[in-house]
Amino acid sequence: MSRIIVGVMGAGRDASAEAREAAFELGRLIAREGWILLTGGRNAGVMDAASRGAKEAQGLTVGILPGKDTEGMSDAVDIPIFTGMGQARNNINVLSSRLVFACGIGAGTASEIALALKAGKKVILLCCNQEGIDFFRALGKENVLVAAQPDEAVLMAKKLMLT
Amino acid sequence: MSRIIVGVMGAGRDASAEAREAAFELGRLIAREGWILLTGGRNAGVMDAASRGAKEAQGLTVGILPGKDTEGMSDAVDIPIFTGMGQARNNINVLSSRLVFACGIGAGTASEIALALKAGKKVILLCCNQEGIDFFRALGKENVLVAAQPDEAVLMAKKLMLT
Amino acid sequence: MSRIIVGVMGAGRDASAEAREAAFELGRLIAREGWILLTGGRNAGVMDAASRGAKEAQGLTVGILPGKDTEGMSDAVDIPIFTGMGQARNNINVLSSRLVFACGIGAGTASEIALALKAGKKVILLCCNQEGIDFFRALGKENVLVAAQPDEAVLMAKKLMLT
Amino acid sequence: MSRIIVGVMGAGRDASAEAREAAFELGRLIAREGWILLTGGRNAGVMDAASRGAKEAQGLTVGILPGKDTEGMSDAVDIPIFTGMGQARNNINVLSSRLVFACGIGAGTASEIALALKAGKKVILLCCNQEGIDFFRALGKENVLVAAQPDEAVLMAKKLMLT
Repeated sequence: MSRIIVGVMGAGRDASAEAREAAFELGRLIAREGWILLTGGRNAGVMDAASRGAKEAQGLTVGILPGKDTEGMSDAVDIPIFTGMGQARNNINVLSSRLVFACGIGAGTASEIALALKAGKKVILLCCNQEGIDFFRALGKENVLVAAQPDEAVLMAKKLMLT
Repeated sequence: MSRIIVGVMGAGRDASAEAREAAFELGRLIAREGWILLTGGRNAGVMDAASRGAKEAQGLTVGILPGKDTEGMSDAVDIPIFTGMGQARNNINVLSSRLVFACGIGAGTASEIALALKAGKKVILLCCNQEGIDFFRALGKENVLVAAQPDEAVLMAKKLMLT
Repeated sequence: MSRIIVGVMGAGRDASAEAREAAFELGRLIAREGWILLTGGRNAGVMDAASRGAKEAQGLTVGILPGKDTEGMSDAVDIPIFTGMGQARNNINVLSSRLVFACGIGAGTASEIALALKAGKKVILLCCNQEGIDFFRALGKENVLVAAQPDEAVLMAKKLMLT
Repeated sequence: MSRIIVGVMGAGRDASAEAREAAFELGRLIAREGWILLTGGRNAGVMDAASRGAKEAQGLTVGILPGKDTEGMSDAVDIPIFTGMGQARNNINVLSSRLVFACGIGAGTASEIALALKAGKKVILLCCNQEGIDFFRALGKENVLVAAQPDEAVLMAKKLMLT
């Protein structure tokens, strides 16, 4: 039986300090649950922070990269998947995740939240502005949850997996 | 020199009657400008309506389909491109469009607006709810415009292409 | 009813002079049949030659590009589709073609012939070395045909479309 | 530092008994080297056999699936990546593998060998017919090696990784 894979999505260079901190903690907590962490794999922002958090807690990390080689890849990715398909890889990120945590919302992350909802996945929002929360709640209804802190987000995820 | 291709994105079965009507008119006006219409190619909702509108005005229509064959394809598509890659094809839709009209916002369309902004493209919103307008304006700033009617949307597009 | 689209696949920079000449003639004959030409869209080798041939005969040309913008695109492409997904776009090339002409065999073209056979499409080989002919005939059986000249290849294609 | 990932490619239902046996042994030996095994992830033929072999030796297995969910997935895949993009995922398989073992040659596998060569990767052929060996050697030159047995193939891979 394959292990549970959850995704943490968020911006690269443009990620806020708050989103990076939350992502690191989220990665750490995900690893502690025994879940595998999946991110966009780049060496910047939320992707890098979540992966480093997971490694600090001896977790396993998967990175689905937009490029075709290790250029720009996070050192904290154990299993890099090179897609060579740019942002089209965002759909792979969400299809491969049992559920998705969004940590802040840039344009790439917004596409991943939307693709996750299109695929019928649950999304837990963290560090999102009010416009993002209002929009995605209206769009995704009960499939969109909002957490104030990483530990609350992971608790929500655990409950969702029981149902 | 290749002709101008513009995209009209919107929901399939879930599209509102208002969005379908606007899409039909948008397709018609796009064809009149001599632009090529690009849609997601399916035989439902905004995609189908825009393509039929363009054909009524003797336009040329391209459909970038999620499937690998003609199943579920709009009859009004002249040039079907079969991707066989589901929603990952949304990124192709926006990369291949000079600019993007979004006619209503479902989950698939939201992903296309976000991917368009990620790719640095302009997006003109039509028939969108206030949450969508507020969110995408906050996200995309001057790259997001809002039109009240199809003719206003096309006028905006013409101005954008001059700059 | 959408028009017939046929693909011409072949190498870029590494294409032989013979393959380029055959591709140009193939493009011309395809346009004369009223078929739409689909290629990989780049400004080199077989892709460029076939597209220029089709334009000389007032045909319509589609290019499915590996990149995300016009860089490296053939001037003879009317309808560029930007996939931004590198060689993964080869599968789109074959899914979108009623049948595939392969004009010489480099590594990219070999992948397209194989993907075409996987998708159950017919492939007509031109300017191929004996190893290529032997291998693909053994692999694809009656779905692989070998033509000595462009006009013979187009005649074969016409017969195949009747069945 | 991320671990070494190697790919084993081969047919599903159409794989020969010989190719399945070789794939199982190959998976076992790959796991013993401490390498991660990557396959197309399906519950048939070479993909399934290689994954089961790797699990028997306590290895870690990644499956890059053509579909968007667990339907048709091998039980022996630890980390399933759902691409939802059919055969276009073949390019991801090869980009993500340090080198590629091909175990028999069907149409899908032929596309993967060709894409691997296009990406500049080494390919080691096992259980291939003479037409396949002749063709891919002519195409890929020193990037194509031929092994008689799984243990010889793994030895070749180890030598290649030192250079």
